[in-house]
Amino acid sequence: MSDEVVTPLSHEECWQMLREEEFGRLAFRLVDEVHITPVNYAVDHDTLLFRTAAGNKLLSVAMGAEVAFEIDRYDDHHARSVVVRGGARILHEDEEHRADNVPLRPWVGTPKYNVVEITPRVVTGRAFRLTRPWLHLTLDGLGQE
Amino acid sequence: MSDEVVTPLSHEECWQMLREEEFGRLAFRLVDEVHITPVNYAVDHDTLLFRTAAGNKLLSVAMGAEVAFEIDRYDDHHARSVVVRGGARILHEDEEHRADNVPLRPWVGTPKYNVVEITPRVVTGRAFRLTRPWLHLTLDGLGQE
Repeated sequence: MSDEVVTPLSHEECWQMLREEEFGRLAFRLVDEVHITPVNYAVDHDTLLFRTAAGNKLLSVAMGAEVAFEIDRYDDHHARSVVVRGGARILHEDEEHRADNVPLRPWVGTPKYNVVEITPRVVTGRAFRLTRPWLHLTLDGLGQE
Repeated sequence: MSDEVVTPLSHEECWQMLREEEFGRLAFRLVDEVHITPVNYAVDHDTLLFRTAAGNKLLSVAMGAEVAFEIDRYDDHHARSVVVRGGARILHEDEEHRADNVPLRPWVGTPKYNVVEITPRVVTGRAFRLTRPWLHLTLDGLGQE
């Protein structure tokens, strides 16, 4: 790793991390509002797929527009984040089988889903060297529940 | 925990999680574009504070507008996410001392910062019971680097 505190990730590193992770956050615009929601996703060739409850009005309004999607990972010393910006659309029924060929399962067992595809237009990633002198002040660090 | 797969978090649970975490993602609008970026933050009373590089043009344009901010945590069986929506502004120099009273240090050692305050208008949280039957298919699960 270089001496720089922030270094860009290569295109290949970004896609490798996108393939390794399965949980990200989708940001989209709804008229004047910006919304953000966690999503379980999978890479299908050069697109991202995720399932959403059928009839999610927020998302359906946002489809066709540009969205932003982020994944990250971090430990005490390093963080890296990949951001994808691109168009989103709901797959037609005869395309939904694409979601069966990737490790994309709903994390939450609600019954009916649409499959949404993000076609990346811009993919950027950054690696950060962290300085967190106050870490000992936290009670349980970044503990998971 | 209830039998429901998705349950709302109480207002108190949302703020407790906001106080426990220190890393989230900020979504903001820039004309027609939606952007998302990871940020290190801290709670100061009923606001969120974070530092950003002075002269971050993207963010300064977005100030005054409504932004969305998300934190989450997850393990193999549960996930929870808190989303804050509200206004963002850059603190004046004579207010920046507020950032010295909370455990808000730059993760990345670049020299000059502005302090941004988010004043939450809406705070919502959800807990999810996860079903991830494909987890064994991943090489290294959700491993951190």
